[in-house]
Amino acid sequence: MEKHIVVLPGDGIGPEVTKAAKGVLETVAEQFGHRFTFETHEIGGAAIDNQGTPLPEDTISACKKADGILLGAVGGPKWDSLPGHMRPEKGLLGIRKQLGLFANLRPVKGFKPLLHASPLKPEVVEGSDLLIVRELTGGLYFGEPSERRNNGKEVVDTLAYSRYEMERIVDKAFQSAQVRRNHLTSVDKANVLESSRMWREVVEEKKQDYPDVNVEHMLVDAAAMKLVTNPGYFDVIVTENMFGDILSDEASVLTGSLGMLPSASIRQDGLGLYEPVHGSAPDIAGEDKANPLATILSAAMMLRHSFNMNEEADEIEAAVHSVLNNKYHTADLDINGGSQVSGSEMAKKISEQM
Amino acid sequence: MEKHIVVLPGDGIGPEVTKAAKGVLETVAEQFGHRFTFETHEIGGAAIDNQGTPLPEDTISACKKADGILLGAVGGPKWDSLPGHMRPEKGLLGIRKQLGLFANLRPVKGFKPLLHASPLKPEVVEGSDLLIVRELTGGLYFGEPSERRNNGKEVVDTLAYSRYEMERIVDKAFQSAQVRRNHLTSVDKANVLESSRMWREVVEEKKQDYPDVNVEHMLVDAAAMKLVTNPGYFDVIVTENMFGDILSDEASVLTGSLGMLPSASIRQDGLGLYEPVHGSAPDIAGEDKANPLATILSAAMMLRHSFNMNEEADEIEAAVHSVLNNKYHTADLDINGGSQVSGSEMAKKISEQM
Ligand SMILES: CC(C)[C@H](C(=O)O)[C@@H](O)C(=O)O
Ligand SMILES: CC(C)[C@H](C(=O)O)[C@@H](O)C(=O)O
Repeated sequence: MEKHIVVLPGDGIGPEVTKAAKGVLETVAEQFGHRFTFETHEIGGAAIDNQGTPLPEDTISACKKADGILLGAVGGPKWDSLPGHMRPEKGLLGIRKQLGLFANLRPVKGFKPLLHASPLKPEVVEGSDLLIVRELTGGLYFGEPSERRNNGKEVVDTLAYSRYEMERIVDKAFQSAQVRRNHLTSVDKANVLESSRMWREVVEEKKQDYPDVNVEHMLVDAAAMKLVTNPGYFDVIVTENMFGDILSDEASVLTGSLGMLPSASIRQDGLGLYEPVHGSAPDIAGEDKANPLATILSAAMMLRHSFNMNEEADEIEAAVHSVLNNKYHTADLDINGGSQVSGSEMAKKISEQM
Repeated sequence: MEKHIVVLPGDGIGPEVTKAAKGVLETVAEQFGHRFTFETHEIGGAAIDNQGTPLPEDTISACKKADGILLGAVGGPKWDSLPGHMRPEKGLLGIRKQLGLFANLRPVKGFKPLLHASPLKPEVVEGSDLLIVRELTGGLYFGEPSERRNNGKEVVDTLAYSRYEMERIVDKAFQSAQVRRNHLTSVDKANVLESSRMWREVVEEKKQDYPDVNVEHMLVDAAAMKLVTNPGYFDVIVTENMFGDILSDEASVLTGSLGMLPSASIRQDGLGLYEPVHGSAPDIAGEDKANPLATILSAAMMLRHSFNMNEEADEIEAAVHSVLNNKYHTADLDINGGSQVSGSEMAKKISEQM
């Protein structure tokens, strides 16, 4: 198959980790007889510096024509004092919204050789394997009005959703549960918020269409507790944008390997933006120290979710497991009796392993 | 001193744990020569059953005249299918709002003999001692409009704050930090929300008045991570209502003794409502199994924050520590080589210890 991939390296360690993942994608193409073409564009701080805006027009138009988008990371202290609309994060929010990437998939699964780095006790974290499905283009982060009022004495933000926006993300979550362990936890604050009451209704309606999935409702405060006390309880969690932002970051530290976590932001037709969960780590940028595995695993998600190449994705994931089991790791990780390698060496090991 | 206390037992184990705390308050009065008078009123499910509303008028008017309010717990499956305005939680939201209890103080501190029950590794949780100051009467949980629109196809909730509401809670937090370790973490989502940008401005302004306090800003997603990876990092956290709801519940499970955590909801003039963080536990209600220590520690917070009786509060807290160190515990806890006692026995042990 032929696929066209837009690479958005972004800031900090973004260029190194996307380069590493691109190499692995090239190995996949060779092995499976695909043709992947690549095109690179700017986003975030790099785009602010060179083009005066965090999300240039040509970046958006290239992404619109792509089959898949691979992003490194955006942001850094250099741009932290710019006004709101000129912040690197605006690029990220903008691309999600303009491309309609409404479903954010955040799998969290421990790697045996790394679990010792978890803040949780082994018996609490062992075996946990969950997926957070976060609504990504609605709710409080996009609602209008969002403004000062009454001479700056008051302020409002707006949590707005249409029923349709809820339906499509809830469908996505039920479908995700069907190819996992058939257990869906819908998280809301229905004892207080009207939007959460509507959310709960939508879930109740939709569950008729997925009789094989076991669905339950949980309040967001209870979910924030249970993620820590019993992460293994969860299979798929679905929730609105802001709750998803908080819970998915909380979940990302449970297994002790934040540097290993991929994410996908996708829409109905399969177009998706894939990026590691970790940030741009400007302090180690350019030193070939950064762990490329989260970005490589994000590329595997692209193969699976945007290109329908499941075998290819399995192959990458298996290679990551093998290399860790062979005790190779980057500087951010620690494996008992292991060998530390650079970011580019790690990427090479993955390609070799495949 | 003479103080008048309104007791709101509420639902489930609420009556048992407030009774236990009342006993301890009577011991304090005797020992220190105070006169505490008590008056009991209904709230939550009990009030729905007997008076048809979760927050009866006479409950509110009694609370308005009180020096302090001690609450057990509200809610239970029995009332879960009632419409929104008839839910027990409405009683809680209503009393906070009508009395103007804008500052929710949630201390989280481990007890040595109980730390083994934490989901976190000992080296991660040891020594953590933090206080979350949550704004309690503004933001998304109270903002208008909160409604369906366009024939039920859309919904909005509103996150509204006045600058004044932000200023008073931020002041409270700085003052709390001054009597602790002088480190304040203000949590917001200033990279996305206008209300958070105003919040950050208010904190920046206020910090001029508290030069002895070391203040920093943290994004809510980063805070949700750091609470798990390094709870000992925090001293005082201040944040708006919804972020505070989620983070304080997340924090409440870190030390492994949710059944031990007190809370205070207070206003400027010192009037406050004091309640345990745990819920109404209907499954064990009436069996004298419930752990009364969180409510007893809430009573200690009342002495400290509403009555300015610091010595008396210290005395209760010291008694709780001693009794645990002597290895007495209720059924929800486990102490190596300890003796399990009933809820009422536990309360008696605290009074004896004093
Ligand atoms: C950068 C920020 C706007 C973004 C968000 O909150 O959506 C980030 O935290 C994320 O979770 O991808
Ligand atoms: C019952 C509910 C409305 C309440 C809240 O979210 O404020 C509770 O969760 C709390 O934190 O005290």
